Amino acid sequence: MTYPVSQAARLDLSSDVVTLTRALCDIPSVSGDERVIADAVEAALRECPHLEVLRDGDAMIARTHLGRSERVVIAGHLDTVPIAANLPTWVEGQGDDAVIYGRGTADMKAGVAVQLRLAATVVEPVRDVTYVFYDAEEVEASRNGLARLGRTHPDWLVGDFAVLMEPSVARVEGGCQGTIRVEVEATGVAAHSARSWTGRNAIHAIEPVLAVLTGYTPREVDVEGLVYREGMNAVGIRGGIAGNVIPDRCVVTVNYRFAPDRSLAEAEAHLRELFAGYQVTVTDGSPAARPGLDRPAAVRFVTAVGGTPGPKYGWTDVALFSELGVPAVNYGPGDPSFAHKDDEHCPASQIVSCEQSLLRWLTTE
Amino acid sequence: MTYPVSQAARLDLSSDVVTLTRALCDIPSVSGDERVIADAVEAALRECPHLEVLRDGDAMIARTHLGRSERVVIAGHLDTVPIAANLPTWVEGQGDDAVIYGRGTADMKAGVAVQLRLAATVVEPVRDVTYVFYDAEEVEASRNGLARLGRTHPDWLVGDFAVLMEPSVARVEGGCQGTIRVEVEATGVAAHSARSWTGRNAIHAIEPVLAVLTGYTPREVDVEGLVYREGMNAVGIRGGIAGNVIPDRCVVTVNYRFAPDRSLAEAEAHLRELFAGYQVTVTDGSPAARPGLDRPAAVRFVTAVGGTPGPKYGWTDVALFSELGVPAVNYGPGDPSFAHKDDEHCPASQIVSCEQSLLRWLTTE
Repeated sequence: MTYPVSQAARLDLSSDVVTLTRALCDIPSVSGDERVIADAVEAALRECPHLEVLRDGDAMIARTHLGRSERVVIAGHLDTVPIAANLPTWVEGQGDDAVIYGRGTADMKAGVAVQLRLAATVVEPVRDVTYVFYDAEEVEASRNGLARLGRTHPDWLVGDFAVLMEPSVARVEGGCQGTIRVEVEATGVAAHSARSWTGRNAIHAIEPVLAVLTGYTPREVDVEGLVYREGMNAVGIRGGIAGNVIPDRCVVTVNYRFAPDRSLAEAEAHLRELFAGYQVTVTDGSPAARPGLDRPAAVRFVTAVGGTPGPKYGWTDVALFSELGVPAVNYGPGDPSFAHKDDEHCPASQIVSCEQSLLRWLTTE
Repeated sequence: MTYPVSQAARLDLSSDVVTLTRALCDIPSVSGDERVIADAVEAALRECPHLEVLRDGDAMIARTHLGRSERVVIAGHLDTVPIAANLPTWVEGQGDDAVIYGRGTADMKAGVAVQLRLAATVVEPVRDVTYVFYDAEEVEASRNGLARLGRTHPDWLVGDFAVLMEPSVARVEGGCQGTIRVEVEATGVAAHSARSWTGRNAIHAIEPVLAVLTGYTPREVDVEGLVYREGMNAVGIRGGIAGNVIPDRCVVTVNYRFAPDRSLAEAEAHLRELFAGYQVTVTDGSPAARPGLDRPAAVRFVTAVGGTPGPKYGWTDVALFSELGVPAVNYGPGDPSFAHKDDEHCPASQIVSCEQSLLRWLTTE
């Protein structure tokens, strides 16, 4: 299934936020094909004389320079996962019950629409704002546009606080879990299974590893008032040579999702301690991010948008802001459990209320 | 690596058994390509007026009709596993220490050479003899030439006792283990590993299966004076969908090698009892064969060839004879642990002593 990529597109930032969401979704921008949408976003932002616009590849920032005592960052990615015959967008329901369906509606062009509306309409925010739009969030970390800006233009991302407009059902989600994957390997001695006592079975030797996992009690950790629930799971297992051979190797892939009170190194050390005696190889990992909700800038944000903050269980780019020293939260319209699904959708009312909440935040001391 | 297949070949049954072994090996006959060697064997046998020769595809029998009170079967397969740059044969060492190297020397053309020498030279054996030569022993059971004869010409295989000339270091090996393979499956509920508590991990659920295997004490069973040592082993394990997904399925393949006091059905029942609560699917199985060494014909054989019989741990075609109601043993030159290896070989002295032992048996009341 391919979807024709638009050659040029125009965005009208004076349209309402729901219409703007649909216009953004209807410009296909699967990771790697963000050029058209990035051009359209840049062109629209450059029509706003109160903003400085800077671009790097298909990522860009737009920022105010009002000399406020505080600078906040509002960030969103322009790319989506592949289209699944779910474009152009369509609407189901009416009025307050209207729901926008289609690729990108939840993850995360509704959030981008809110960013663009705020950028265009809040000419004199009470805190200076840097709007960040970036490419390639939905693919491998090495291509991530926000990470690239962090390497090439770290000064563009400076701020006292950041909001990442990932879908969170318009609830403030603080920090994020870390994730690390290791391969735990048991070795043995191959032999013909008719004379199994001449070998040593590596699959049998992996049993204590599974016993550790089944007996493991995941921590529930309070970090700055948010309770993170960890997870320690086998996500893969493989072993065996042939139906008549005692296997000499068995590998379990373990994924540990850890709370922000642990560093990536501490998570690795925990795994090595759990599986002492086995060969443990780290295959990948990403650090957790602390919620940072105790910072004054965060307190002001939570007060302005309302609701009770919760922990983020998945891994998001708030961790990248965290590495840059900018406390960040997830806050955006849409339910993340429908992201990447064929029936991806977002209630229109959530998009509107997100815009109103952020407008309140940017215009209230 | 391919090896040119001979277009025609001639065998001289008056040559010594070691020379005949090399001549047989030097006619390549990888399973499926037995035509040339079968033609050569048939032609050589048809020169013996005391034998009736009957052929089916690339399998054949040659038998005496002397009206003896006992008929014995001496069987061997003509095919080999693929050649590994180990033909034509070569000799290392001299005199009593000479060793013949090359594909088929152990498994089992030395045995076939002994059969052919006996067929040609023992014109008036004290017991009637049926010599069986067959194809496709080294591949899937459905192609096995002996099994085919059992289906199409069961009368050709009738006898009071059978000797299968598989390599056994010239020691009588009685009966054979049975083998059965099952897949033991655990199921779960898939979920994102960042919210693992919303799923149920199938790899974790397989842990009790591995615990059963590691805690299992294999039986050592005395069957008619031979001690069979069983084996219960995982020979494969697989599970996992992706690095961030709680797996909903995990499958362990278990191979049970069982002593001849159990039928295939009893072996299956034992596995189902061991892994109660899991889905158990039989993927394949072959029954064991009792040694049959208590039969008068077997006693006479063991007395004639000498040595102490032992159990056969692998599965061989003696089980096919057993199904036909013919007690059978393995007895042949060559060490089975070198079968299928690149350095396959057979001591010349073993071939000579096997020929002498069987000659004694066929010529002594």
